[in-house]
Amino acid sequence: MTSPSPLLKNLAVVLHQPKYGENIGAAARSCCNMGIRQLIVVRDFLPDYEDMAKMATHKAVHLIDSMEVHDRLENALAPFSVVVGTTARLGRKRTIERSPRDIVGEVLPLLQNNRVALLFGPEDRGLTNDDLKFCQYVSSIPTADFSSLNLAQAVAIHCYELYATLVEQTRDPAAVPAFATTEQLEGMYRHIENSLLTIDFLDEKSNNYWMQSIRRFLGRIRLTAKEASIIRGICRKFLWHQNNRFSAVQTKTEEP
Amino acid sequence: MTSPSPLLKNLAVVLHQPKYGENIGAAARSCCNMGIRQLIVVRDFLPDYEDMAKMATHKAVHLIDSMEVHDRLENALAPFSVVVGTTARLGRKRTIERSPRDIVGEVLPLLQNNRVALLFGPEDRGLTNDDLKFCQYVSSIPTADFSSLNLAQAVAIHCYELYATLVEQTRDPAAVPAFATTEQLEGMYRHIENSLLTIDFLDEKSNNYWMQSIRRFLGRIRLTAKEASIIRGICRKFLWHQNNRFSAVQTKTEEP
Repeated sequence: MTSPSPLLKNLAVVLHQPKYGENIGAAARSCCNMGIRQLIVVRDFLPDYEDMAKMATHKAVHLIDSMEVHDRLENALAPFSVVVGTTARLGRKRTIERSPRDIVGEVLPLLQNNRVALLFGPEDRGLTNDDLKFCQYVSSIPTADFSSLNLAQAVAIHCYELYATLVEQTRDPAAVPAFATTEQLEGMYRHIENSLLTIDFLDEKSNNYWMQSIRRFLGRIRLTAKEASIIRGICRKFLWHQNNRFSAVQTKTEEP
Repeated sequence: MTSPSPLLKNLAVVLHQPKYGENIGAAARSCCNMGIRQLIVVRDFLPDYEDMAKMATHKAVHLIDSMEVHDRLENALAPFSVVVGTTARLGRKRTIERSPRDIVGEVLPLLQNNRVALLFGPEDRGLTNDDLKFCQYVSSIPTADFSSLNLAQAVAIHCYELYATLVEQTRDPAAVPAFATTEQLEGMYRHIENSLLTIDFLDEKSNNYWMQSIRRFLGRIRLTAKEASIIRGICRKFLWHQNNRFSAVQTKTEEP
């Protein structure tokens, strides 16, 4: 897979006046999960370090240690040329708001030549219209009736949407599983048929009817080569047992 | 928008041996945000009610109150015909794992006639292979190097992916903003041109060149009718002021 990393160096998550250290820590962890390397906080003083570090876990605590802290939002956003604000869905009032998916689709290509900030407001009231004036994009997570998300969850969802879309765009075609070939499948079906004939589940008359049904449901699974060979292994073992148990009976194993 | 709600009555979030009450509460909140009405927990006894209720917030506490509790995973999953397990990305070992987006695309249509469980393992170790044997789908959130997500965040991301895709599929075309018509835009450009002529920013010679540039960048914004009329309002006011300040000067306002 082509690494989505280089593009993400231009992205930062900015938390405006977050109240709880735990949410800053959880945001650091989400950033780290999704390859985002910069976390910025706008606050006069930081909450307890332990609260942040515990939720970040030791894997993401470096984002807390290297975190920029600003006293004013304008200063925090100064170096960014694209700012994506996030708000709770507010019905008809803020008609310009769009879903994270819509916005990620537009913003990802901009990362090539622009520093992009993903901006989140405080837990209790979110971003005000005064904060949103810095934003060229306003993203709103689609929700059912209860539209207020936990801050850490809103950060996680946006980081995920960004990273998942990036991964999708750079997906290596080799990641698609390699399915069994017709030859492998036909060998497997012969093995199954022989096994079922041995136990008289099939006879010459009903043979086609039942094998069609079996082909239909096994076909739906899209078996890989390895899975087809597991099924053949079971049949082989089964036939061997039948053969040895009733050694007088002529089994119908026919290796292709 | 067509309500995505009816389909979601067939969906439940199942938490297998969650350790922290806060994560159960956060999961309840995420479910409620995304229109999911059933939360099931597999645990011998429940953690402190207050820990769960606080993170759920009063809007989602009914999901805690109505939560099913089972002592065995198999019992919890008994009525479901589709089970989606969730795991951390584990490189090459679990090749059948796919992204939430891939899986949601396949599972959403099944909600019509099937009860679907979204299954999450405990915070420290996730679902074991023994748990995963109940799952027809295994979903893995794409991550950078640090693949372990907080449980509450993993729940939020899966619920979001499901709801966002559902909303996208049922999106009302009326939600697309109505852009300004050519007539509205041309009226606006005439207003801008007149204003700029008044302050000698434009003259007869450079007129076309500068107006082309202005059209180009205003065109990129895809203005709505309302926004175009705001710009015209500014020009109108500006021209009125020019007119009254230098009342001897003939302003060039021409209402279309």
